[in-house]
Amino acid sequence: MNVDLGTVRAQLSRTPGVLDALLRGLPDDWAGLTEGPGTWSPRGVVAHLTHADRTNWLPRARVLLAAGEAQVFSPFDRAGHQAVEATLSLNELLDDFAATRADSLRALDALSPGPAELARRGTHPEFGPVTLAQLLSTWAAHDLDHIMQITRTLGGGYRDAVGPWQAYLRIMR
Amino acid sequence: MNVDLGTVRAQLSRTPGVLDALLRGLPDDWAGLTEGPGTWSPRGVVAHLTHADRTNWLPRARVLLAAGEAQVFSPFDRAGHQAVEATLSLNELLDDFAATRADSLRALDALSPGPAELARRGTHPEFGPVTLAQLLSTWAAHDLDHIMQITRTLGGGYRDAVGPWQAYLRIMR
Repeated sequence: MNVDLGTVRAQLSRTPGVLDALLRGLPDDWAGLTEGPGTWSPRGVVAHLTHADRTNWLPRARVLLAAGEAQVFSPFDRAGHQAVEATLSLNELLDDFAATRADSLRALDALSPGPAELARRGTHPEFGPVTLAQLLSTWAAHDLDHIMQITRTLGGGYRDAVGPWQAYLRIMR
Repeated sequence: MNVDLGTVRAQLSRTPGVLDALLRGLPDDWAGLTEGPGTWSPRGVVAHLTHADRTNWLPRARVLLAAGEAQVFSPFDRAGHQAVEATLSLNELLDDFAATRADSLRALDALSPGPAELARRGTHPEFGPVTLAQLLSTWAAHDLDHIMQITRTLGGGYRDAVGPWQAYLRIMR
């Protein structure tokens, strides 16, 4: 598939609405449901996406554009959302994500990288050279990855309730 | 998790909005993207959900309530959506699903099964006795299963674009 900046931007702009439709008003036991120890609940995933917008994607894009491969990206703190997650309700987390994502899209539009910038390389702390186009594509794919995770987690909550249909639903395997 | 009729109804009512946020206006190459031969595109999944609302879930619930275990449910035609899918645009498929689901919810509300009905058994053509509560829970979980499928399919479209990040995104495995 051809993934250009328009494709990425369109997915990034869809995600807050998807999460809102899927989660707003969900009872606490579902919002806090996980797939087992060490896995994230829907609440946690929303907080993580917000934290990643604030500290990971655009900050890394700016480092890449400013310093190229010379400056390694800062590692991303995968647990960095937990303090905020603990203080906000699910609906507040959704509002926070939507506002943060709107800011991100404005910042991305201001950056407006052209073909030369998109092909420019930075240095990932673990796997080395990556282009700006790869970084931005990963931002969009990361949204989809976590929408899938939330959906799978919610589906798991139906495991006992569906009885013998369990064997037919891929979401429960 | 406790899955009651309210839980099922809430999920069923969320799904059209989720699919709309995820898919409306998506370019044809993304709407038609699959995970390989024999797998369904986002377009196909939306058509399948509509077809299942029309021919599977509530019709089976009615058979169960009318005849109990005496009448085996009709088998569901998993390819039954393909004729309609071929004639409608993605946005029309989304409209059709939203309208069909709204009809389904009205019909479910009219049915308004109480505890005795929810515990009543019917006969599934492959795995035998199932309760109405299990059937309705499966309807909701089936929505989530297919939202997950669409999300995974879209995520797969980013495989080449993300470069070395491929290894970090579960959606691409």
